[in-house]
Amino acid sequence: MSDRLDRQMAFLAEADRLKGIERATRVLGGARFENSAEHSWHLALYALTLGDHAPEGVDRDRVIRMLLLHDLVEIDAGDAPIFGSHDASTTAADEEAAARRIFGLLPDDQAAELRMLWEEFEAAESADARFAKALDRFQPPNQNLASDGGSWRDYGVTVETFEARIGPPIARGAPTLWDWLLPRVRAFLSRL
Amino acid sequence: MSDRLDRQMAFLAEADRLKGIERATRVLGGARFENSAEHSWHLALYALTLGDHAPEGVDRDRVIRMLLLHDLVEIDAGDAPIFGSHDASTTAADEEAAARRIFGLLPDDQAAELRMLWEEFEAAESADARFAKALDRFQPPNQNLASDGGSWRDYGVTVETFEARIGPPIARGAPTLWDWLLPRVRAFLSRL
Repeated sequence: MSDRLDRQMAFLAEADRLKGIERATRVLGGARFENSAEHSWHLALYALTLGDHAPEGVDRDRVIRMLLLHDLVEIDAGDAPIFGSHDASTTAADEEAAARRIFGLLPDDQAAELRMLWEEFEAAESADARFAKALDRFQPPNQNLASDGGSWRDYGVTVETFEARIGPPIARGAPTLWDWLLPRVRAFLSRL
Repeated sequence: MSDRLDRQMAFLAEADRLKGIERATRVLGGARFENSAEHSWHLALYALTLGDHAPEGVDRDRVIRMLLLHDLVEIDAGDAPIFGSHDASTTAADEEAAARRIFGLLPDDQAAELRMLWEEFEAAESADARFAKALDRFQPPNQNLASDGGSWRDYGVTVETFEARIGPPIARGAPTLWDWLLPRVRAFLSRL
């Protein structure tokens, strides 16, 4: 049991590094960039709060678990901003290697459990993963609306780009949230 | 449903401010102070990872929910460092008012649900709350060990103070974690 706890604690110590991974979105009205640890917390709170907008059959607690660990791979692979240009296959390979190393710090049974949950999130096929992915796409626009455009300004994002890139995963996993968001983003971006 | 979602989104927008609440502990080997949002994420990950060290009957997912919202009151009341000197009754009154205002942003049924969960955490009487509280006391010493003493140096904390203030809640809610931690802290503090 002691070796088990040693490995769990090594994983939790490593996880601290997610607090140093900077994202493209901002916090506190634009004061600074968000890091992936506080982003993960905010998303988990989104899941806790918005559970009644999830499609039927979604397990809210399982979605929360998924969101708590969905960005851990960024400790090695970094954050790939959604409007940035990056090679998707390189990112996927980097994240696979990161998952092996980081979840691999845990006892084997737990490493397998958490890695499977991360892979389910990445695949975005199950109802839980689709809802989790929808939230992961839904929070940043709200941060941008609260910080005068944030990453939309940095990347010169138009309404068309926004709808094409961000719309499908939100509309698929959480349609009522997309219906709420879209008019607000349209109104904002049309004024830029 | 739309007014319901408006209120949930107002709550989630307000929650962003927890990312600006600074704690006494450090992150990333001592590079900067931790904020309460990333702390809450880290604690939820502790609960996810260390569930097998929880006393029997503890509901891991419920503990995670509790930890996600346990510090929200700090948006109004600020963080009260455990080794600092502050008036406990003033802090408690400030936090009660904060809970009323912040959870009160939510639809009434949800405001009541989340506020009850927060009050259960504060009371630290149920098995879930005792485990959650133990993790909330267990994470900072690990951050201090990883950042050359961190807040222990700032507050001149001795082994005796540490054991008296930090020991009881951890030993009560998660005895195996206390057994793991104590020799490590003793070894570190005895060298200061």
